[in-house]
Amino acid sequence: MHDGFVTASLLEALRAGLDDDCIQADPDVVEAYAHDRAIFERAGTGAVVVMPRTAADVVATMHAASSVGVPVVTRGAGTGLCGGANAVDGCVILSMHRMNAVLSIDTSNRMARVQPGVLNGELKRAVAEHGLFYPPDPASYEISSIGGNVATNAGGLCCVRYGVTRDYVIGLEVVLASGEVIHTGRHTLKNTAGLDLTGVFVGSEGVLGVITEITVKLVPLPPLPCTAVAYFADLPSAGRAILDIFRAGHEPSLMEIVDQASLRQVNAVYHMDLDTSAACLLLVQSSGDRAIAAIEEMAELCMAQGATEVHHVSDPAEGDMFVEVRRRVWPAFEHLGKAMLPEDVAVPRERLAELLAGIVEIGERHRIHLPTIGHAGDGNMHPLLVFDGGDADEVARAEAAFTDIVELALGLGGTIAAEHGVGTLKRRFLARELDPVHHAWQHRVKDTFDPTGMLNPGKAI
Amino acid sequence: MHDGFVTASLLEALRAGLDDDCIQADPDVVEAYAHDRAIFERAGTGAVVVMPRTAADVVATMHAASSVGVPVVTRGAGTGLCGGANAVDGCVILSMHRMNAVLSIDTSNRMARVQPGVLNGELKRAVAEHGLFYPPDPASYEISSIGGNVATNAGGLCCVRYGVTRDYVIGLEVVLASGEVIHTGRHTLKNTAGLDLTGVFVGSEGVLGVITEITVKLVPLPPLPCTAVAYFADLPSAGRAILDIFRAGHEPSLMEIVDQASLRQVNAVYHMDLDTSAACLLLVQSSGDRAIAAIEEMAELCMAQGATEVHHVSDPAEGDMFVEVRRRVWPAFEHLGKAMLPEDVAVPRERLAELLAGIVEIGERHRIHLPTIGHAGDGNMHPLLVFDGGDADEVARAEAAFTDIVELALGLGGTIAAEHGVGTLKRRFLARELDPVHHAWQHRVKDTFDPTGMLNPGKAI
Repeated sequence: MHDGFVTASLLEALRAGLDDDCIQADPDVVEAYAHDRAIFERAGTGAVVVMPRTAADVVATMHAASSVGVPVVTRGAGTGLCGGANAVDGCVILSMHRMNAVLSIDTSNRMARVQPGVLNGELKRAVAEHGLFYPPDPASYEISSIGGNVATNAGGLCCVRYGVTRDYVIGLEVVLASGEVIHTGRHTLKNTAGLDLTGVFVGSEGVLGVITEITVKLVPLPPLPCTAVAYFADLPSAGRAILDIFRAGHEPSLMEIVDQASLRQVNAVYHMDLDTSAACLLLVQSSGDRAIAAIEEMAELCMAQGATEVHHVSDPAEGDMFVEVRRRVWPAFEHLGKAMLPEDVAVPRERLAELLAGIVEIGERHRIHLPTIGHAGDGNMHPLLVFDGGDADEVARAEAAFTDIVELALGLGGTIAAEHGVGTLKRRFLARELDPVHHAWQHRVKDTFDPTGMLNPGKAI
Repeated sequence: MHDGFVTASLLEALRAGLDDDCIQADPDVVEAYAHDRAIFERAGTGAVVVMPRTAADVVATMHAASSVGVPVVTRGAGTGLCGGANAVDGCVILSMHRMNAVLSIDTSNRMARVQPGVLNGELKRAVAEHGLFYPPDPASYEISSIGGNVATNAGGLCCVRYGVTRDYVIGLEVVLASGEVIHTGRHTLKNTAGLDLTGVFVGSEGVLGVITEITVKLVPLPPLPCTAVAYFADLPSAGRAILDIFRAGHEPSLMEIVDQASLRQVNAVYHMDLDTSAACLLLVQSSGDRAIAAIEEMAELCMAQGATEVHHVSDPAEGDMFVEVRRRVWPAFEHLGKAMLPEDVAVPRERLAELLAGIVEIGERHRIHLPTIGHAGDGNMHPLLVFDGGDADEVARAEAAFTDIVELALGLGGTIAAEHGVGTLKRRFLARELDPVHHAWQHRVKDTFDPTGMLNPGKAI
């Protein structure tokens, strides 16, 4: 009864400030926008979906929500894996998908201004027409939005060479809880005029404000890469080869690892003639001007560490076929018809082999499928929890394995959340990674920007 | 009398928490630490210099200063050009020069942890022994500290290729006004665990906290560069050549410009056989694997835009002789025996020729020497105000020229402060660049971290 009154007041307040087509209160629609892809996490029941067209629409939403005291949960394309975009009970779900314009591409200064609903792949293609490259490439890049990428500080495969989303965001327009619109960051290549508040919003998962415009920097489009693949009979050898490559000064544009469980499933489903006796397969690409020489040198470093089989190719199409092994891991496990949740931890590069071995042990101990693929060059692994969501015992074992993987990463000096964010999924581990002062200050900064706690409550920090 | 009482109480409180050798109250010593290099800006009279050895010493200083209500002004090596490190009356001057240890160099993950008093050049040399490179290179790199570089988000010559200090700082230890010690940022190559508060401290000029440890990322040491030089008869041609170089996808590792007034003075003092009829000299370097081909292509682009004389060399020593022209501009003007203040503005690359022409006009109108050198690739110019500090009329004309340059940059869509920061020198212009909401939020963030306003009052924001 009370909730119904609040929702009626909310709708009235929203309709006063927004066009009707921005507001969707149909419970089926609201439910459809209530979830991201974090399968362990329960979403609440939102009151309404608002689909703004402009920053002014977001301001109006903020005023309406605060006037009746309901929270606002902002979402991009809903591809998050940690529950960061899950609805909370009674909230406004603010879906940014209609603010999807590439506003400008500045070829002289290699910058672009975009709205948050632009998909990552759309931005990549738009700037590629000008010979430019927007590097961050989460696996979801064709279906995830730049706004969501910024909110989660998304990573991807290219990060080993190019860095993460944070490294490309140079300015933001953000609507704050107060309804104020703030323009952070810089509009020139160099700028030291005042505090730069941009960084604190990158990766803030909607708890500090709603991002309504993003300025990114761009780099020249790199040439197509050369590729090397190396099988290793044991994980420590692969770990040593990885270190040797970086210590020799190489800058691979991609360095991925596929473990034995993944190789076996890909082979079983796709018959790719892979060496399923290997402990892992290391994939390396180089796209610099010295790409051929560099890829040969990296292949030699793998051989010197005892790789059982090494190939390298300069033909981009052949190289892409090697990378296809990695891309097929997820679809190959989908053939099992089970639930799948990719974990996301990272450790210093020198601890990578220990992390991988520990993950294998955790999978065996909890008797679940736990194949691992990951961004070896970043020490960032994605163990894939594959389990029967209808089997309560198996779900419990998957959840136990999930916790053990996070604990393992922490024990190896790593992070609980490398590139997928915290959401609700990882929140209980945050105090293990951040010291108490740092943790307390996360909340103080939150309180400064959002004193009533209306923005995405219960998430990220 | 009151001040004397406060200072006595301050000294007592400091002595209770710090070793005696950390505290210097001798007025001559205090005066020696009271200034940076911003010659227009008046420094106040500090009460005492504290020279901490540890973060705990900084915490003790913070507690002592707040117990008696005096401000704390932190300084690195004092090479700042905007008054950011100038003492305010009655303050503790906190000089970080004894916290100068390189704590660790991690070759596997290409990171280093350093204390703030390490000089930039010392860090460069320490990591170079491991084949690694810390790119930010303010002209002061041999005498400026990493802590000061972080506090001002220092730039330099390499930024056109490598970015600024902000792009290399991945974690900080900061002592806050409260005496709390916060560890921001990340310790793994990727990390999305909680809000990243690092960025807001980079470039904060001591108004948010005292940086006591810095984690930087490193890159492989690049090969020595190839170099091209091009004289242009007019500034617009040079401006077009610069744009053509970037639009063609080049990534020069250095792109500097030296204007006619600078060429003439260098030639007059050093007899370098320069073409002093040229409007400017453009210096370009490339250090990639394709360096020779790239430098030839960039030289051709200069010729296509009508450069009157172009040379390119692959020998690093020969190239260095060309860059020497740029390095000698400041010493050449020192021969005039006048006061010198380098301005620091930036505009979008396509407005660079207009900026340079406007600067020449400003110098003529105010009848002062106003040669310009600058980081052409970043649109970041350093017009050099050269004036007789003992001639009140000339000082007034220099100050008027200074203001006109800032106004000119703003009018061209540029920034008032590209890489030297704001300090006290540029503070009156800040509201011209930042919108009112952004400006207000700078103060709210300051108030959050430093509610009593004890840290470097009157600076930066």
